[in-house]
Amino acid sequence: MSPNHPKPAPNYAVLSGGIGGAKLVVGLRQVLADGQLQVIANTGDDFEHLGLPISPDIDTLIYSLAGIANPETGWGLRDESWQFMDALAGLGGPDWFRLGDRDLATHIRRRELLAQGCTLSETTRRLAQAHGVHVPVWPMSDTPVRTVVETAGGPLEFQDYFVRQQAQPVITGLRYGGIEAARPSPGALQALAAAASGAIILTPSNPWLSIDPILSVPGIKATISTSKAPVVAVSPIVKGAAIKGPTAKLMRELGIEPSVLSIAAHYRDILDGLVIDTQDRAQQDAIEDMGIRVHISNTVMRDLADKVALAQQVLDFATRMRAAKS
Amino acid sequence: MSPNHPKPAPNYAVLSGGIGGAKLVVGLRQVLADGQLQVIANTGDDFEHLGLPISPDIDTLIYSLAGIANPETGWGLRDESWQFMDALAGLGGPDWFRLGDRDLATHIRRRELLAQGCTLSETTRRLAQAHGVHVPVWPMSDTPVRTVVETAGGPLEFQDYFVRQQAQPVITGLRYGGIEAARPSPGALQALAAAASGAIILTPSNPWLSIDPILSVPGIKATISTSKAPVVAVSPIVKGAAIKGPTAKLMRELGIEPSVLSIAAHYRDILDGLVIDTQDRAQQDAIEDMGIRVHISNTVMRDLADKVALAQQVLDFATRMRAAKS
Repeated sequence: MSPNHPKPAPNYAVLSGGIGGAKLVVGLRQVLADGQLQVIANTGDDFEHLGLPISPDIDTLIYSLAGIANPETGWGLRDESWQFMDALAGLGGPDWFRLGDRDLATHIRRRELLAQGCTLSETTRRLAQAHGVHVPVWPMSDTPVRTVVETAGGPLEFQDYFVRQQAQPVITGLRYGGIEAARPSPGALQALAAAASGAIILTPSNPWLSIDPILSVPGIKATISTSKAPVVAVSPIVKGAAIKGPTAKLMRELGIEPSVLSIAAHYRDILDGLVIDTQDRAQQDAIEDMGIRVHISNTVMRDLADKVALAQQVLDFATRMRAAKS
Repeated sequence: MSPNHPKPAPNYAVLSGGIGGAKLVVGLRQVLADGQLQVIANTGDDFEHLGLPISPDIDTLIYSLAGIANPETGWGLRDESWQFMDALAGLGGPDWFRLGDRDLATHIRRRELLAQGCTLSETTRRLAQAHGVHVPVWPMSDTPVRTVVETAGGPLEFQDYFVRQQAQPVITGLRYGGIEAARPSPGALQALAAAASGAIILTPSNPWLSIDPILSVPGIKATISTSKAPVVAVSPIVKGAAIKGPTAKLMRELGIEPSVLSIAAHYRDILDGLVIDTQDRAQQDAIEDMGIRVHISNTVMRDLADKVALAQQVLDFATRMRAAKS
C-alpha cells in the first residue's frame, strides 16, 4: 500500500440481542460507511414454533436495519396484518406467540432455506439481502443454542418464559442448552477479527439473556479477550432500572443489584470501556476502580436522533481508547 | 325396534374431489338431515408445500360446507388476503401455489395436529368442527397417496402438473403413488357401510384425478361392489366437454372420447345409475345398453338452487333404484 493511500476505515463488530441492541445498531448504521459494521446476533432466543424456525433477535435486527420494524413493539413489522393469527386462533391453534402475516413469510422462507441445506448464516444473509439489508448480521453460531430459564416451577424454554409467561416467573438460574457443542459461526469469527481495526461493541441488550449466550459460544470470549480492539459496552441499566424488558427484575432474582456497577462487574473480564447514562455519573469512579474506562452520555434512545448520537459517542469513545491502548 | 318406530333416515356416502364435487356435496347438505350425509374425500392431490401438509380437496369440501369458500375460484377462502404470499414472493420464496393468509392457518394447524400424532381423519374432523362443519369429511385413507402424472417430459407431482403447469403438459398415464400400501380410513369404510340404507354417490369430480384414487385404495372398490346400496354417479362431462377443469383434455390424451358414454364405461364395474345432462339425452339408450340406468337432469350447477335441485334429483333417482333393486 502506498503511503498516500488512505488508511482503510476501521471495522466494528457489534454483539446484539433484539430490541435494545437493534436501536444502537441502527444508530451505528447511520454513522458508519458501508463495510464498517458487522453484527453478531444472539440466537439463544431461537425456537421452533408451529414447525417454523423462529430467530427473534436476527429478525428484529434485520427489520430494524431495513426500516420496517414496528416502532411501537420493537419486534415484528410495521403496518402488519393479523389474518393468519386470528384464523389460527379460530382453529384452536396457539396464539401466544404472535406471528403477523408478512412476518410469517420470513419464518416460512427460513425453514425452506434451512431445509435446502443452507446454514443459518447463509439463510440470514439471504433474508437480509431480500430486505435490502447489506450490513452482515451473523448468527453467533450455526449450531442451535437454546436459552433455558430455571424457575421455582422448573425449567422453561426462553419464549415460554419471555412471551407466554411475560417474564413473570422468578428466575433461579439460566443455561444455554447446546452451548458446549456450539461453534462460532465463521462470519462471527471473521467479524471479530476484522474489528481489530476498530472496536468490539456490546449493545445495551440484556447481558444475561442476549449477550452472555454469544460470549458463551466456545471460542468467542477468548477471541474477544485476545483482540487488539477495545471492547466497549453500553449499559442497559440506567438509575437501577432497565430501559425496557426484564433486565433489572432478572438481576434482582439472580441476587445482583441492578446498577451500572453490576453491569461493569459482569463484563469486567473483557471490558475496556463502559458507556453509562448521565443519571449514573456518580458511579464513574467506582467503575474506573475496576480498571474500566467510563464515558458518560445520554443512553436512552427515544428516536433516530438519539440512536445516531449515542452511536457517535460510542465510536468516539472507542477511538479514544484505541489511541490510549496503542 | 317397535313397528311404530319410524324407519331411520337413509344414509349417503359421497365420493368427492374438490371443486366440482363440493358443489354437489353442498346441495346434498341442504336436502339431507343431520347425520344422513358422509363424504369420502380424495387425498391423491395432497402434497407437502413450504413444509406444510396441504389437502386441497378436503379443504375445498370443508370451506364449501362452511359457506366460506371463494365462489370465484372454487378453492381457497372468500374475502381472503394475500399479505403472506406477497411477502414470501418478495423474499424469493415460491409463489406458484397461492396460500391466502387465513387459508394458511388451516395448513399450519393441520401440521400441528399431525405432529401431535392425530391421524389425517382426526385432524380433518377437528378442522371441520372448528369451521362449524358437522358433516363427516373422511380422507379416503390416513396413509399418504400421491397422484403422479406421467407426461412426455417425465413424471410430475400432481400439483406441479395441475397448478404450476396449469394442466398444460400432455398426460401419458397416471399413477397413485403409495396406493398399494394404503388402507381405507376407518371413517370411509364406516360411511360406505352406513350407506347400505341409502346410496353411494360419485360426484361429478374428475374420474381419473379425483374419484379413481378413492376407488383404488385397496378395499374401497370391493366394499362398494358388494354393497346393497345403489351406486349413482353424476357425469362430469356435458356435451363432450368438462364443466370446469381438465377432464375432457385428460380423456383425449388418454385416448378416451370425452363423452357421457365414456364416463359410463369407465364406471360400469360399480355403477347402477348415471345422471347425465339434458344436452346428452341422445346417449341414454347406449348407456342403458351397458346395464346402467340413466336419469336426465340439468347437471350444470351455477348457483345454490342448481346444487340443491341436482342433489334432489340424484337422491330421488337413487331411491327409485333401491325400490327396483329390492
